[in-house]
Amino acid sequence: MIEQIQRKLDLIREKNKDRIRLLISCPDQSGIVASVTKFLHEHGANIIQSDQYSTDPENGGMFFMRIEFVLPNLAERMQALEEDFARVGGRFRMEWKFSHAGRLKRMAIFVSREDHCLMELLWQWQAGVLPADIVLVISNHPDLGPVVEQWKIPFYHIPVTKENKREAEREQLELLMRYDIDVSVLARYMQILSPEFVAEQPNRIINIHHSFLPAFVGARPYERAYERGVKIIGATSHYVTNDLDEGPIIEQDVLRVNHKHNVEALKRMGRTVERNVLARAVIWHLEDRVIVHNNKTIVFE
Amino acid sequence: MIEQIQRKLDLIREKNKDRIRLLISCPDQSGIVASVTKFLHEHGANIIQSDQYSTDPENGGMFFMRIEFVLPNLAERMQALEEDFARVGGRFRMEWKFSHAGRLKRMAIFVSREDHCLMELLWQWQAGVLPADIVLVISNHPDLGPVVEQWKIPFYHIPVTKENKREAEREQLELLMRYDIDVSVLARYMQILSPEFVAEQPNRIINIHHSFLPAFVGARPYERAYERGVKIIGATSHYVTNDLDEGPIIEQDVLRVNHKHNVEALKRMGRTVERNVLARAVIWHLEDRVIVHNNKTIVFE
Amino acid sequence: MIEQIQRKLDLIREKNKDRIRLLISCPDQSGIVASVTKFLHEHGANIIQSDQYSTDPENGGMFFMRIEFVLPNLAERMQALEEDFARVGGRFRMEWKFSHAGRLKRMAIFVSREDHCLMELLWQWQAGVLPADIVLVISNHPDLGPVVEQWKIPFYHIPVTKENKREAEREQLELLMRYDIDVSVLARYMQILSPEFVAEQPNRIINIHHSFLPAFVGARPYERAYERGVKIIGATSHYVTNDLDEGPIIEQDVLRVNHKHNVEALKRMGRTVERNVLARAVIWHLEDRVIVHNNKTIVFE
Amino acid sequence: MIEQIQRKLDLIREKNKDRIRLLISCPDQSGIVASVTKFLHEHGANIIQSDQYSTDPENGGMFFMRIEFVLPNLAERMQALEEDFARVGGRFRMEWKFSHAGRLKRMAIFVSREDHCLMELLWQWQAGVLPADIVLVISNHPDLGPVVEQWKIPFYHIPVTKENKREAEREQLELLMRYDIDVSVLARYMQILSPEFVAEQPNRIINIHHSFLPAFVGARPYERAYERGVKIIGATSHYVTNDLDEGPIIEQDVLRVNHKHNVEALKRMGRTVERNVLARAVIWHLEDRVIVHNNKTIVFE
Repeated sequence: MIEQIQRKLDLIREKNKDRIRLLISCPDQSGIVASVTKFLHEHGANIIQSDQYSTDPENGGMFFMRIEFVLPNLAERMQALEEDFARVGGRFRMEWKFSHAGRLKRMAIFVSREDHCLMELLWQWQAGVLPADIVLVISNHPDLGPVVEQWKIPFYHIPVTKENKREAEREQLELLMRYDIDVSVLARYMQILSPEFVAEQPNRIINIHHSFLPAFVGARPYERAYERGVKIIGATSHYVTNDLDEGPIIEQDVLRVNHKHNVEALKRMGRTVERNVLARAVIWHLEDRVIVHNNKTIVFE
Repeated sequence: MIEQIQRKLDLIREKNKDRIRLLISCPDQSGIVASVTKFLHEHGANIIQSDQYSTDPENGGMFFMRIEFVLPNLAERMQALEEDFARVGGRFRMEWKFSHAGRLKRMAIFVSREDHCLMELLWQWQAGVLPADIVLVISNHPDLGPVVEQWKIPFYHIPVTKENKREAEREQLELLMRYDIDVSVLARYMQILSPEFVAEQPNRIINIHHSFLPAFVGARPYERAYERGVKIIGATSHYVTNDLDEGPIIEQDVLRVNHKHNVEALKRMGRTVERNVLARAVIWHLEDRVIVHNNKTIVFE
Repeated sequence: MIEQIQRKLDLIREKNKDRIRLLISCPDQSGIVASVTKFLHEHGANIIQSDQYSTDPENGGMFFMRIEFVLPNLAERMQALEEDFARVGGRFRMEWKFSHAGRLKRMAIFVSREDHCLMELLWQWQAGVLPADIVLVISNHPDLGPVVEQWKIPFYHIPVTKENKREAEREQLELLMRYDIDVSVLARYMQILSPEFVAEQPNRIINIHHSFLPAFVGARPYERAYERGVKIIGATSHYVTNDLDEGPIIEQDVLRVNHKHNVEALKRMGRTVERNVLARAVIWHLEDRVIVHNNKTIVFE
Repeated sequence: MIEQIQRKLDLIREKNKDRIRLLISCPDQSGIVASVTKFLHEHGANIIQSDQYSTDPENGGMFFMRIEFVLPNLAERMQALEEDFARVGGRFRMEWKFSHAGRLKRMAIFVSREDHCLMELLWQWQAGVLPADIVLVISNHPDLGPVVEQWKIPFYHIPVTKENKREAEREQLELLMRYDIDVSVLARYMQILSPEFVAEQPNRIINIHHSFLPAFVGARPYERAYERGVKIIGATSHYVTNDLDEGPIIEQDVLRVNHKHNVEALKRMGRTVERNVLARAVIWHLEDRVIVHNNKTIVFE
């Protein structure tokens, strides 16, 4: 990795060294917020940001919460806090997760031939806006190797054919294990992942689809948008599940087009939406702002 | 019709009394614009606005044009001009249509129970922005009768059931004939028109669908948008064809939503998009800005 | 007021009869949320929605909170709860305010000749989306009287000239007193209110300005937007202060324009933005979603 | 320049080798379009795209036109066509300009320390979307030198101080001469150019200002946007004139923000708008889509 990027990431780590994010999902009931905030207060945590959402507060739906807090001397105190929290979590039947903001998530990027989403992620990364360790890029084509290597990031060319798909995916998974990857981003990676692959990485693979889903699920969305004569095109970033283009949507955006835009123009204009949408979704994931529930996302922006 | 609206419409008629709009579609070839503009110039027409579009100018695609021009003493000269134009039209194998801007299109509005699209059309109409003669409102429910009658517009309540649908549609068509209707607007009219009805009114029925088509074709789009967890909702105005929600799209718009918006909120927020989109589409149609070709629209805004 | 609107308002009152909104501003410090939520929990309140914001959580900035909660048997218990809260409020040096959601705010609308903002407010009101008692309309012109009276709302025509301005404003203030008005909305009211008038109604007068402030402060913003050749126009809703067009901004929105749009077109297109922006701002105010601090707003959407 | 970019630019040159763009401004009168299109038709030109605009067609305002046409064997025939056109141009008192689309404009980029606008231009350039020869980058700081040199583009570091400003600008102008520059882009170049410099390059310097002008003219717009509490921020690309931030606006765009966004967040979010707006404006300029008249632009998108 390039030294000046390393320095920016070190700054992010330093700035967040005592900072924790807590994500909670549980059946709604009275007293949750009071209990959680009292717990944190008593353990010496200072709440920096707190967001919550109830699906149906008057009829007992689900409750979701994201709290970001500072815990001075975190290294000494975090373990006890996590253990003690089990009591609160158990009482309210929570699923919960603490994430240390000072430990950047380790990220892999999958690409094919188009570079715009990759370039956006790298650009936001070197600007210090995308807080991750980008530790490798995997591609089924060799084309983007030279670009990636300029950034001093390992590039793995793993061709994928019908015949070798199983083998190729095993190789990919081994890389994800070897590099201890937390999240994989499909930055216009034009291969469908097998159910086995996806099952290994639940809510840990983020894709960008080049349409405003659920319109134009599947291949060639710009061509189909052109044929249909839509006046708006878009892009959708979502977690990958085994239902093609049906995973939980993290972010979408659109732009206006008109009859003058042919397929080539739609693709060109669409690239800007794709890369902006993907970058936003990835950053939200990295900042632990996304909770998945019932194939939908709660995004605490 | 209320007197002050009548006065506004009279002003529009007066302002446009010498104004003609010409819409042209034909196979593209060299010399079309030169021929048409030379023709109009020689006939004493003064071109006010001219827009054109070629689908594929270098490989012989289709050519579309909209010209708005003033022809002084139009009453005396229009017939000759139209007849002479046949020569130009024939030479380039054109489909073409002259519309007199001073003759307002006669419009029917179909509604069910929801009033927001109806109200928007009436409001834009009384503001002098929607240049039509709104001559009747037809509904399958009686609810909006009193509102419509406040505006001194005839309201026809024609209930529609499975059993009487054929009969009801015949009654509706008779009204369209009797009132000499040019264009019908389905302002959240919650009945599917039969193929026979639609066949009688090609590209003369405008619908508003409460989703950004082709997402959520069919019933209950807000409920399905909520279930899918989209981050953007929208509305689509299109000409009605016999493929449900598959007609040529005239206009679409969207707005951002998030996990906090339940179905009720989506519906409430969506209403503003629906009425804005429908009003824009209807106004463009009334101003002869829309050409339909291959189930798509060219809109000369 | 029309009976069916009355029925919708009664439904809103009934639905919110046990619902309270609490707005809090105070210097930030540790333990506020824990204390407030514990307090409410112990008093039997069920929190429906809770939002908070800290300007600078790590360096002791300001803290803002909005909590919406249900208190069963509110009538009996509200007074005690309010009194007890003084203890919490005092401890954290809070400014706070409880609002009973079941008591609709009493609203006056000021208009001049243009009707679009008035009509939008009335339409959202009759749709049950704008939760207020609209109890009178005041205008410096007689034009909109007949429209307002169709809605069975008292209309007061108070002409304003340089000479009688003081007298006219006294008359207006007397009406606001007599009708016990909570909030006044200037729906394209084309008079500048005197400092005395404004001082009587701090953060209780909402205006719509027809530009994206701070661009085009003052008169004739569309004309100046046209002259400057901007590619975007907008509208701004803000609380009225004694600095013209400088009050706290509640909401803004914009739309794209281009060289083809003359002043007339900008005005026509701008109306839709103006009425949407104003309606959103007014609804947020009515739902106690806005806190003013340092001439800026925190809006808990 | 990197070889693969060179190949993309060669493709653009080849594709446009017979393509001409004609921009026309003149007092409006009847017969202009007929004369121009007849002229081109008779000279064997094939019109690919034609757009026109009249400021006030019925009262003799100004007329603007952009025609893109193919002239086979352009090298042999272009000179005659240009000479002959003088007759048409003279008759209608036109200002006009022919541009050969196959000759890419030579472009200089000025930067200071921030790289996002530079990177966007380079990225759109290598993607084959920005049709220019980017032949040098000039900066008053050395920081971006290494980045630029990776792209094999000459980088000139010319420090600017109060004392040496005159000398520095002379050095810059000499570079623009020596490299035969057609257009200069200020990609967040944080120096104000002197009137002498600007006078040398009328409508040939494009700037990006980090606010939606005319709001926040001058320095520190994000800080001032934060202080004012706007709900929308934006960016504006314009030609540079001697009135600071008052030149003809080419393009603007905005994005929604709220009370949660501090100055740092506004800057971070604003960068994406700035780079998108600047890239669009520069591409339109390069494609001869912009006519300047009375300090405003007509943009034939």
